[in-house]
Amino acid sequence: MAKKERNLYLTNVPLKEAIDHYIDSVKSVFAGFSVEMVLVSESHNRKTSRPVFAEISAPHYNAAAMDGIAINAEDSYGASETNPIHLKKAKHYQVINTGAPLKSEYNAVVMIEDVVEVDHKTVEIRQAASPWQHVRPVGEDIVKGELILPENHIIRPQDIGALLSGGVGEVEVFSQMSVGIIPTGSEITELKNPLPEGKIIESNSKMFRALLHTYGVVGKTYAIVKDDPEIIRQSIRSAVVENDMVVVNAGSSAGTKDYTVDVLREMGTVYTHGVAIKPGKPVILAEVEGKPVVGIPGYPVSAYVVFDQIIRPLVYAFRDEASTKVETLKATLVRRIVSSLKHEEFIRVKLGKVDDRWIVTPLNRGAGVTMSLVRADGILRIPQATEGYEKGTEVEVELSRPLEALSNTLVSIGSHDLVMDLLANELHKFKCNLTLSSSHVGSMGGIISMKQKECHLAPIHLLDENTGEYNESYTKKYFAGEKMCLIKLVKRSQGLMVQPGNPKRLTTLTDLSREEIMMVNRQKGAGTRILLDHLLQKTGIKPETIEGYQREMTTHMAVAAAIKTGTADCGMGVESAAKAMELDFIPIAWEDYDLLLRKELMETEEIQKLLEVIRHNSFKQQIEALGGYDCSETGVVKNI
Amino acid sequence: MAKKERNLYLTNVPLKEAIDHYIDSVKSVFAGFSVEMVLVSESHNRKTSRPVFAEISAPHYNAAAMDGIAINAEDSYGASETNPIHLKKAKHYQVINTGAPLKSEYNAVVMIEDVVEVDHKTVEIRQAASPWQHVRPVGEDIVKGELILPENHIIRPQDIGALLSGGVGEVEVFSQMSVGIIPTGSEITELKNPLPEGKIIESNSKMFRALLHTYGVVGKTYAIVKDDPEIIRQSIRSAVVENDMVVVNAGSSAGTKDYTVDVLREMGTVYTHGVAIKPGKPVILAEVEGKPVVGIPGYPVSAYVVFDQIIRPLVYAFRDEASTKVETLKATLVRRIVSSLKHEEFIRVKLGKVDDRWIVTPLNRGAGVTMSLVRADGILRIPQATEGYEKGTEVEVELSRPLEALSNTLVSIGSHDLVMDLLANELHKFKCNLTLSSSHVGSMGGIISMKQKECHLAPIHLLDENTGEYNESYTKKYFAGEKMCLIKLVKRSQGLMVQPGNPKRLTTLTDLSREEIMMVNRQKGAGTRILLDHLLQKTGIKPETIEGYQREMTTHMAVAAAIKTGTADCGMGVESAAKAMELDFIPIAWEDYDLLLRKELMETEEIQKLLEVIRHNSFKQQIEALGGYDCSETGVVKNI
Repeated sequence: MAKKERNLYLTNVPLKEAIDHYIDSVKSVFAGFSVEMVLVSESHNRKTSRPVFAEISAPHYNAAAMDGIAINAEDSYGASETNPIHLKKAKHYQVINTGAPLKSEYNAVVMIEDVVEVDHKTVEIRQAASPWQHVRPVGEDIVKGELILPENHIIRPQDIGALLSGGVGEVEVFSQMSVGIIPTGSEITELKNPLPEGKIIESNSKMFRALLHTYGVVGKTYAIVKDDPEIIRQSIRSAVVENDMVVVNAGSSAGTKDYTVDVLREMGTVYTHGVAIKPGKPVILAEVEGKPVVGIPGYPVSAYVVFDQIIRPLVYAFRDEASTKVETLKATLVRRIVSSLKHEEFIRVKLGKVDDRWIVTPLNRGAGVTMSLVRADGILRIPQATEGYEKGTEVEVELSRPLEALSNTLVSIGSHDLVMDLLANELHKFKCNLTLSSSHVGSMGGIISMKQKECHLAPIHLLDENTGEYNESYTKKYFAGEKMCLIKLVKRSQGLMVQPGNPKRLTTLTDLSREEIMMVNRQKGAGTRILLDHLLQKTGIKPETIEGYQREMTTHMAVAAAIKTGTADCGMGVESAAKAMELDFIPIAWEDYDLLLRKELMETEEIQKLLEVIRHNSFKQQIEALGGYDCSETGVVKNI
Repeated sequence: MAKKERNLYLTNVPLKEAIDHYIDSVKSVFAGFSVEMVLVSESHNRKTSRPVFAEISAPHYNAAAMDGIAINAEDSYGASETNPIHLKKAKHYQVINTGAPLKSEYNAVVMIEDVVEVDHKTVEIRQAASPWQHVRPVGEDIVKGELILPENHIIRPQDIGALLSGGVGEVEVFSQMSVGIIPTGSEITELKNPLPEGKIIESNSKMFRALLHTYGVVGKTYAIVKDDPEIIRQSIRSAVVENDMVVVNAGSSAGTKDYTVDVLREMGTVYTHGVAIKPGKPVILAEVEGKPVVGIPGYPVSAYVVFDQIIRPLVYAFRDEASTKVETLKATLVRRIVSSLKHEEFIRVKLGKVDDRWIVTPLNRGAGVTMSLVRADGILRIPQATEGYEKGTEVEVELSRPLEALSNTLVSIGSHDLVMDLLANELHKFKCNLTLSSSHVGSMGGIISMKQKECHLAPIHLLDENTGEYNESYTKKYFAGEKMCLIKLVKRSQGLMVQPGNPKRLTTLTDLSREEIMMVNRQKGAGTRILLDHLLQKTGIKPETIEGYQREMTTHMAVAAAIKTGTADCGMGVESAAKAMELDFIPIAWEDYDLLLRKELMETEEIQKLLEVIRHNSFKQQIEALGGYDCSETGVVKNI
């Protein structure tokens, strides 16, 4: 097959304009939903397609409303305290329980408390009954023929009760909307072990199906289609017949292997190819045989953003329902955010309430960083034609977590260590309704954030080169005159991570200057980088002489991964990361990794809970199991 | 079997005290949830039972981040505009697409835009590449071994994407909580046609299952059990083994056929029998073999209130989750509500926003009136030891509908006619995002509500006895000096509804005074009652001489139902009700049934939409199909 030319350019239509135009275009040809009969017992959350009327009355007979005797009221006329009337069983009355049917010869019930038993066949009453007293008449609740539910009503639990009480066993509802999902791409594969190089696990269709589930829609996933226009065409044809809407993921851009748009142009109408949003620009809005077909880009973050921004409003528009409102929060930006004038940008952010102020911290903006969606507390939209926001701007964030959960979050900004992941998990495990949210910007970044009151906790490991002491002198220097605390967390073993079996025979830091050795480094401001620089200076090695010194990673695990995959021979990091990635490790120094915080927070409930978890044996045992840690001081608090 | 004695009295423990004590008691013996492995693709909304770590890195190979050529950066050193370097295919470079794996001999990507093709085997570059430029390194998104999700985390769509990208195909989650539901009662039956007299349709278990669904719990319904302690015992025994919690409905009171509490005392521990709430007092909180077993009363409204007030907090407590907050609204009471000091009361109410003020109107308080749950916009709690609230009090209502839907509601208070049901349905059908909420208090009740600005619309049919004219003179009298409008709705035929075939040979109203004739009446203030009284006066018949004149029903359909079931021979009402209930009808008068409203509302969007629907042919056609209506003036507006 001849390679197709890159002969198409994406348009740059604003999101809202693109969606509004698309809904207008597609709605007019959209076939509408079919209807089906479902059992009332299975009708929860379905929508009525016609009014529902009661088929029988409830109650459908005159029923006693009290325990007592059923009588004909006329037989009691004239009864009084001074003139009690005697009634004979069977002839004048019948014993009746609440809810039991009243025989047609009776028209009133006398409460058991007002009946005096004379003998087992005679009772005495001392008050006249009025007709229909203590009788639940037919239809008291629901009258046959009465409207129980109108058309277009979403059925709730109490509606199910009323429908059944009104004798309705089946109800006509709109068929559930069905959205077909076609994953495309020769490089994608279902999850398998081992995963061949060059293959990517197909995850978007499963994420889409769950998103559809939150919109109340059924997602139908088709088999993965390789990059072949004929096969893509066949798959779209089937999906269009079998569903109300179709999503093609990906191949929606204009590259040499992006066939989706051409196929859709042949099969129907393409309304838009390219929307002015970031991430997610290469979007296709098309129509095939009266059904909307949407092409969505492949990078997971783009896929998520585009799906929620485009498929959600489409689904609600087709159902003629108002889209549920997204909860928002006003918060302050702690850093400047630069955005392109050309696009509306969707930036994943973390939120935290520090000192009664909501703080926004942007996460990694890469379209491929799935974990940024997992970590995000919300999405910050930056409109098109805006250059971004200055530090200190108050912005509105669309929340991805309930506000209540965010309010109970301890914000940690600083150095990264696996121990922080463990700590976050322990807090979740103990269900103490407290979440730990960590951003990794290195120890110095943590000090700066703490100074600016953007976090509750700053995990740091900063060596005083003069005294060899950790963290205290840095705290004194940067927080002179302020009352601070250090919660001792762990002592950890720093050293060189090397290939398994140490094939290059590294023994000390001086080996870094050997010509055939390629290292990988941590970013500036990271405690590990500061430690390395200090040690290099002491040994007199010039950084310029080290191959790979400029290559920076932001976590220990990323350094370990670079070595593991052979792109570097070594890197400085903690023993636990080497162990986790099955690397060899050459220990060089023990350092103190502690949590810095303001003293005024120490007595808060949140920090007390945190301390309880830190001091718990199960936490310490898990840390020591990682290897390379010493918990002898874990949980000790130092005032500074 | 010997009848058991009524030897038990219910206690009157406050709701919160009863629940708190119960949760404390049962939680300590509760076995906790089991865990299970589920496919990640099926894990949406499930809760992790342990932390989940990445099994592979994403990407798991070094990948090109751009379309271009893969090279070894060293081969490009020294390249510049003045010193271009030539590279040979295969020897020095390989063409690479975004996302493709980088071979181990290469360590950088040069963008296609920076590559000049010399011939098909040679390219020229004019800038040195730095190692790892435009390369997405292994683990850029997720590093093998990294924590993807902590324990006790409810899985969201984006988490599914990240788990799969991290090579996790299955995840350990807590098993879903299962609640067994046992319907009991010799009088209850599955829905069948015809329904035998004395039998009641079992609807609560289906309502419970839907309620459990909203709490994220699976409900398992057992077969209906008759009132026999041995069978009840067997059923509870099975359900306790197969579920985490069991609900027994009903037989929870202390009557002669209420065996549930005795059975539970034998099988385990009964913590509470009788809670100080209304409706719903006869509640049993028990424990059998470490599982909570709750007895719930049978009346549908009691069942609903007790289930939501007791089972919901139990479910959330057992899952260690904070119960979702119920949305509330502050609103003004338009009538005095009297409540018992002994109980906390849960009153179903309608809400409406009239004149920028939220208005609360209580619905029927009967525990058997299922439709009050369907019609309710919210629940008003009146605390124990409170006598109720005075008119004008601001109260807090727990909402049963979203606030947004309530804001778009036209409140109608006044006379009842089937046409109002049709109108409500038409508004729903045309999806104009407008709801009609009707309360039936008779024409005079409507006039009073309108006077007090409690409604937008008052449907009335009030005859001026002097002129024979309808509605206008009443409006002038009660709204002197105010600008009002009447939207003409229908002319309708009023008359006597009688048994099919008219066996008692009624012809005119004078027949009502015949001794063997039993009538059924409408409530005071109803337009139909006013019409009847006027006609009786004209013909000189004294109400005291009419059998059944005192028996009052609040709707036409209730009057029709009383006649249909033989408890009365006749009653005054509209032809459409007679027709709906298959009764014979003796026409007596035509009357105007119109909508009264304030003139200032006429130009609002809501009333304009209403008028559009009223004037639509499909509405008129439906009305005329009912019989007994004349639509010649429907939709005409009169200023008064």
